[in-house]
Amino acid sequence: MADAENDSTGLIAEMGRRARAAARALAGLSSAAKCRALEMAAEAIRQATPEILAANAIDMARAEAAGLSSAMLDRLRLDPRRIDAMAEGVATVATLRDPVGQLIDENRRPNGLILRRVRVPIGVIGIIYESRPNVTADAAALCIKSGNAVILRGGSEAIESNRAIHAALVAGLERGGISGDAAQLVPTTDRAAVGAILGAEGVIDLVVPRGGKSLVARVQAEARVPVLAHLDGINHVYVDASADSTMAEAITVNAKMRRTGICGAMETLLIDRAYPYPEALVRALMATSCEVRGDAAVQALVPAVAAASPADWDTEYLEAIASVAIVDGVEGAMAHIAAHGSHHTDAIVASDEGVAERFLASVDSAIVLWNASTQFADGGEFGLGAEIGIATGRLHARGPVALEGLTTYKWIVRGTGQVRP
Amino acid sequence: MADAENDSTGLIAEMGRRARAAARALAGLSSAAKCRALEMAAEAIRQATPEILAANAIDMARAEAAGLSSAMLDRLRLDPRRIDAMAEGVATVATLRDPVGQLIDENRRPNGLILRRVRVPIGVIGIIYESRPNVTADAAALCIKSGNAVILRGGSEAIESNRAIHAALVAGLERGGISGDAAQLVPTTDRAAVGAILGAEGVIDLVVPRGGKSLVARVQAEARVPVLAHLDGINHVYVDASADSTMAEAITVNAKMRRTGICGAMETLLIDRAYPYPEALVRALMATSCEVRGDAAVQALVPAVAAASPADWDTEYLEAIASVAIVDGVEGAMAHIAAHGSHHTDAIVASDEGVAERFLASVDSAIVLWNASTQFADGGEFGLGAEIGIATGRLHARGPVALEGLTTYKWIVRGTGQVRP
Repeated sequence: MADAENDSTGLIAEMGRRARAAARALAGLSSAAKCRALEMAAEAIRQATPEILAANAIDMARAEAAGLSSAMLDRLRLDPRRIDAMAEGVATVATLRDPVGQLIDENRRPNGLILRRVRVPIGVIGIIYESRPNVTADAAALCIKSGNAVILRGGSEAIESNRAIHAALVAGLERGGISGDAAQLVPTTDRAAVGAILGAEGVIDLVVPRGGKSLVARVQAEARVPVLAHLDGINHVYVDASADSTMAEAITVNAKMRRTGICGAMETLLIDRAYPYPEALVRALMATSCEVRGDAAVQALVPAVAAASPADWDTEYLEAIASVAIVDGVEGAMAHIAAHGSHHTDAIVASDEGVAERFLASVDSAIVLWNASTQFADGGEFGLGAEIGIATGRLHARGPVALEGLTTYKWIVRGTGQVRP
Repeated sequence: MADAENDSTGLIAEMGRRARAAARALAGLSSAAKCRALEMAAEAIRQATPEILAANAIDMARAEAAGLSSAMLDRLRLDPRRIDAMAEGVATVATLRDPVGQLIDENRRPNGLILRRVRVPIGVIGIIYESRPNVTADAAALCIKSGNAVILRGGSEAIESNRAIHAALVAGLERGGISGDAAQLVPTTDRAAVGAILGAEGVIDLVVPRGGKSLVARVQAEARVPVLAHLDGINHVYVDASADSTMAEAITVNAKMRRTGICGAMETLLIDRAYPYPEALVRALMATSCEVRGDAAVQALVPAVAAASPADWDTEYLEAIASVAIVDGVEGAMAHIAAHGSHHTDAIVASDEGVAERFLASVDSAIVLWNASTQFADGGEFGLGAEIGIATGRLHARGPVALEGLTTYKWIVRGTGQVRP
């Protein structure tokens, strides 16, 4: 085990050394050059469909033999349509606006110095992910487009698929003039490699975990390098007394039930005590076969509702269950969210603009919405073109993170011989 | 020791709980209200000059008895002029432009959703500092102005001074309507309190260490909360063949010798092999009584120069010593900086604009300068009005950090009933 750790540390250090050199070259590439190389990578993935399917069949056979759940098998499975969508995703990222070189601000000092803050790539990004092989292509494309080298460490169950996708991707990048060192796949399935990535201070500049809670929790607990992580989405919809009832029902049902397993799904519905149609609202949710767990006031309205336990208010169900509470106006809603929310995504449905603005200003979440469903919490829906993840930390980037979140800036100062007095 | 740790963890948790509540209130305050309260705090510090001097006299007497170095005694010492400067600093921060509420960008989606990214405070900031008591006022003012609550943990040798400054500051803030919980001073000098701050995940959102290398190193090694830290400034000046020789000498001497102990000081001079006046440049530096350690080519030019050891190229002297190397043009300079630099501040002196632009684009440092001294690396000189520190990390903020670096953002989404298809 100690040997495996040493081996992994050495492996990641060597991959990181090559990645750093590739990142230096990438940082100086034009947008057009990066775009062309990514389009070649997309085409290479498309053309490698037979090889990728063959590799995926090996992973699938092993996974079935190992008795993986049908949900995991579905995440692992590739077919020509999914490979085409993966290639299309890379081609889309190729055409996104390049943040590198963007001028953030400019400032001329009284002594004549001209200061500019300009976006630059972060450097070397580590991506640690689980069974979805498409992350190999998606995450690499976002990193390359933003001028970063990437070290990919996928789940062991997808290793053959990842290798085949990675081989095609790199072949395309290299035809486009970008070194394969810019997008490296950790060749082993050794778990010590994850630890080596998390400890690679100065070698890897940022780690992005893509996967379930246990992966993210491990990454956050062990990492010595900065992490862009997504924790719980305990999201609320608050229906104000002033809400339009049709809108309130549509948003509540969509926020909870459109897809229950995504981080933007509503988990708790808060109903203003003065809202005129609370029973209809709760019944609308139940009519979609959502299980409702309510406080005493909700149970009094709809006797079929189960009692919420104290833990319910702090639970991210990610399934067709909602907790529902009656609160005293927007202040009551904000107090509940401050006590139980996870600072991810929270919405208000209201016609009263003053109440809505108070909610938007005061609720301390990465995303706050007025009269719209929490399920919009997504980089694509936000117009970012793609996303590397949704950040729930408070620094660097918050909410959906795409290309800009994979950059930092530097100060460029132009003078005419100024010395400091 | 275990008891002290438990006590400190409990203390910081309780201070953090009060700070969080104060931060919520602060986040909603108008710029005018924060400005007024900070002006009252500045006035309160000025009026408390006798009390602060009396407290400082106790610290000074203890420090002298303990045999502290004259440099440390000087950092600790307050006089009426220094107290006035401290109050003036708080009053200046009061008038700076408030970043909270600033619109970063806006985006209208085809479905009618309007997305805005708006700056908001980070939340609760921990400041860990050493003997300079003025940090108590400076750092608190920057945090409050940017809408953050602050927990201050100063050096034990300055505890009486810090308490007196803090008491005045809080009295002024409270007269201005801001709770004292927004700016709390850790009341004990127990070292376990530092560990408790560094481990306070979810309680403290960001820690800023202000002090020497050993403090920063400890903070970085132990912290479980994000850190905005400043590491080495191994800064270079590269003099290109195209440089004006008068400018090159003036910038080199200023970059090294104006103040040798600041992080923006030059440590290594790189001279283009094709620069016509290398000997005059080295002699200009030596004429200021700077010790020069050179490579073989420099020693051949000026026999009085000592030989640089390999370690010299990686050393932040922070005194009147410079290492000097002859390099092959801008490419040689950039290779040297990539191998030995610390990504802090690097400058080029050149008349050739193409060469200068290549340097500015390619050198991966927080600050790159063309024809200006590295000693400008400072928030005040950059027009930020003040600085909480100079960040050498790559995420969130880079280079001089002032109010904007103490904020994050949230996404505010306004709809008209949109649900996600």
